[in-house]
Amino acid sequence: MADLWQDAMDHAVNAARSAGEVVQEALQEDRTVMTKSSSVDLVTQTDLKVEKLIIQSVKEKFPTHRFIGEESVAAGEACVLTDSPTWIIDPIDGTTNFVHAFPFVAVSIGFAVNKQMEFGVVYSCLEDKMYTARRGKGAFCNGEPLQVSGQEDIQQAIIATEFGSNRDPEVVEKIFSSLRSILCIPVHGVRGAGTAAINMCLVASGCVEAYYEIGIHVWDVAAGSLMVSEAGGVLMDVEGGAVDLMSRRIVAANSKAVAQRVVAEIDSFSPCRDDAPLPL
Amino acid sequence: MADLWQDAMDHAVNAARSAGEVVQEALQEDRTVMTKSSSVDLVTQTDLKVEKLIIQSVKEKFPTHRFIGEESVAAGEACVLTDSPTWIIDPIDGTTNFVHAFPFVAVSIGFAVNKQMEFGVVYSCLEDKMYTARRGKGAFCNGEPLQVSGQEDIQQAIIATEFGSNRDPEVVEKIFSSLRSILCIPVHGVRGAGTAAINMCLVASGCVEAYYEIGIHVWDVAAGSLMVSEAGGVLMDVEGGAVDLMSRRIVAANSKAVAQRVVAEIDSFSPCRDDAPLPL
Repeated sequence: MADLWQDAMDHAVNAARSAGEVVQEALQEDRTVMTKSSSVDLVTQTDLKVEKLIIQSVKEKFPTHRFIGEESVAAGEACVLTDSPTWIIDPIDGTTNFVHAFPFVAVSIGFAVNKQMEFGVVYSCLEDKMYTARRGKGAFCNGEPLQVSGQEDIQQAIIATEFGSNRDPEVVEKIFSSLRSILCIPVHGVRGAGTAAINMCLVASGCVEAYYEIGIHVWDVAAGSLMVSEAGGVLMDVEGGAVDLMSRRIVAANSKAVAQRVVAEIDSFSPCRDDAPLPL
Repeated sequence: MADLWQDAMDHAVNAARSAGEVVQEALQEDRTVMTKSSSVDLVTQTDLKVEKLIIQSVKEKFPTHRFIGEESVAAGEACVLTDSPTWIIDPIDGTTNFVHAFPFVAVSIGFAVNKQMEFGVVYSCLEDKMYTARRGKGAFCNGEPLQVSGQEDIQQAIIATEFGSNRDPEVVEKIFSSLRSILCIPVHGVRGAGTAAINMCLVASGCVEAYYEIGIHVWDVAAGSLMVSEAGGVLMDVEGGAVDLMSRRIVAANSKAVAQRVVAEIDSFSPCRDDAPLPL
């Protein structure tokens, strides 16, 4: 039987590449203007432009499909995953990096049917790396198969995470507490690319043994989660149960052993879920 | 008058590129790891091989020049900067990244005469970016001139730093205390490439506004320091005085304003100097 969703996946790859071109062009514009006047607004404009471009192209080809897009949700649309074929889009994962031209900026497109990820596409624009994963068929970077690291000794591991954008003292306290515990296991090092999608691609590529974060959104991790599992890795909640992509918590690792060791050091908390009812 | 040290600088660029090729080849092979000062202070055969390769090629062409090399010092050679022309070499800055194939790995070659940096070369092997700086003549990446960020508002800044390889609880406490204060200024974000040399090149490129670290060595920052100053940035000690490349402390920023704001948040300490007398 032909792959039911291959057309959609091909479309996602093309859309991600086109989106990456828009991001690249925006980076060539005068950086002083981008960061001085109102950097956040300007980035939101680029985010909006890229998200619209992707959604519009998908709607033309797949008119019955649904969407969860970072900017659409920010604009008030519901963030609910149904059984319908759904595109989960982060037009620019790593917006802070984008503003500063820091070299990790990704377009992330995940696709779920019956609440299960069918494919994921992450395009790291500045590196020109196209990461793709199809359920049951493996993960790839520019066509080369990906395989997670075989290192199960946590003391020989690099762990990726981020500080996030929440500066609430209680949240910062927990983030630092977890980070310190993990660093002092000790591990080889802690890194963060500044984008969840690329951190997960680094797990899939075997460059880091695990990535964890609390506070991310479904559009940050939908595509990347399939990348990790198709490269032979595991997904877990930060308290050790099954991962829930709407819960804003994730551990993505090369192995169950490393994931559980990371979980043991995390001082967890529960942000408001992505699919929480909108305020009336 | 012709540039007195242009020959040496050309040689450094060629040596860095050749070294980068060895690093690239080694990435395809088994990367056996050894440790130095602690279980997370790593060294590989490639570090040793690359340093020998660079030093040997320089000795043939400039037989009177002196050297400070990371691995030579680890092997017991003195780390003293005299007035003689001196090559300051880190064969692989970012050895932990190298071991994991994390995408930032640099060959760093600085050159000082009369204790003043004359040129610096940082080759980011996996990105194929050749950063060069010549005193009084600017800094470049692959031939394109570099300019630090014009952003002087710390709240719009990205700050780069590292956790380092010291896991002494008192040191970790100070590192986390400084990091938390800086994050909560608040700044746009905190990043770390995993190599001091590339962090400084990111300052020179305008991608991050400042980089600070306590615990680095002269070979980590010699080349990068000139990159920052030649791109229009400033260097400072973590307590705000003049930088001392042997002190193992540095702040490298786009501006005096940002450097001073970072200094104000650092919980400083003084590691054993690089040029401390060797134990008898």
